[in-house]
Amino acid sequence: MSQPPSVEKPPGRVFRFSGGASGRYRVLGSRAVCGDGLETVPWLALTEGPSTPDAACRWSLQGIVSNERYVTRLERERLVSLQAGLGRASARHGALIPIRKNPAWWALTQEERRAIFEDRSQHIAVGLRALPQVARRLHHCRDLAEPQGFDFLTWFDFDPRDAGIFDEMLGALRRTEEWSYVDREVEIRVERVEG
Amino acid sequence: MSQPPSVEKPPGRVFRFSGGASGRYRVLGSRAVCGDGLETVPWLALTEGPSTPDAACRWSLQGIVSNERYVTRLERERLVSLQAGLGRASARHGALIPIRKNPAWWALTQEERRAIFEDRSQHIAVGLRALPQVARRLHHCRDLAEPQGFDFLTWFDFDPRDAGIFDEMLGALRRTEEWSYVDREVEIRVERVEG
Repeated sequence: MSQPPSVEKPPGRVFRFSGGASGRYRVLGSRAVCGDGLETVPWLALTEGPSTPDAACRWSLQGIVSNERYVTRLERERLVSLQAGLGRASARHGALIPIRKNPAWWALTQEERRAIFEDRSQHIAVGLRALPQVARRLHHCRDLAEPQGFDFLTWFDFDPRDAGIFDEMLGALRRTEEWSYVDREVEIRVERVEG
Repeated sequence: MSQPPSVEKPPGRVFRFSGGASGRYRVLGSRAVCGDGLETVPWLALTEGPSTPDAACRWSLQGIVSNERYVTRLERERLVSLQAGLGRASARHGALIPIRKNPAWWALTQEERRAIFEDRSQHIAVGLRALPQVARRLHHCRDLAEPQGFDFLTWFDFDPRDAGIFDEMLGALRRTEEWSYVDREVEIRVERVEG
């Protein structure tokens, strides 16, 4: 009755999203929510690990999975108990949402950002309502050596039947005080292509 | 009585510290405070802006100036009112201190890290006691695409006559609960060479 050896992969750290003529994800739609958009491309490729942009892609964005910045211990426990992992068989639809916040946001102190983020905008509470249907991974790119044009890349997947839950979450977040600091946001909706 | 045009340089974002056979700073001494050290080199070069490592250097560390993670508004006001800028004519001595914190630190939530950082370790209060004699700039490197082997690079300068204030600050910080999470620290002391 020995434990089987763990085959769980260590979580990735560096990811690259590239828009162009190839990739595992077919782009269903793309739009600039605010600020400059990104060229609309037919395919999105996702690469894990250190990489350089493929010369054939039209744009490429890199991000890093990092430590959490805002959640409390209790909030983290709630999130961990409810959230699902990316890549479920049924989660055939997805979205990449790069956002940038303005200099006024970054000039705030940590406690001021936290007050806007959760106490007044309920970012975590809004996200919790979309669990477990919507899975996500947040990538930071503000502190990369090569400027990416965005501060964060969030990658989501969900069953196409749960798209309403996802849309409601996006709508709720975009009406918050926190979002008044977002000066660039692009929404790229995709479908995973099997085989 | 018009205002003169501002000639102030925008603050830099990306910096590289390279150890080897050249640079503006002569290395006076180098030691591993904990964990793996860095090869002792005769010179330290400091480059501002995007760069790749010079093939001739023995080691090279990159870091990014980013938003503040821990200070409150009141603490920031105290720091800003007291601190001096780097590069004063009298500040001929300096130090580069790369540090890494262990996984247990990064698994803490923001509020838990803040409680250790200031409420229990008084990192900011200890630093304030060395102002304005010791000037500093903090660079983050944990979230770079290429792992640097450290989480932070702090660069200091001071008048050689104020070295005691600097040493006392380092000693006080190293005795804190916060420092129990530091698993790699190197101290490189330098002298600026003019001309």
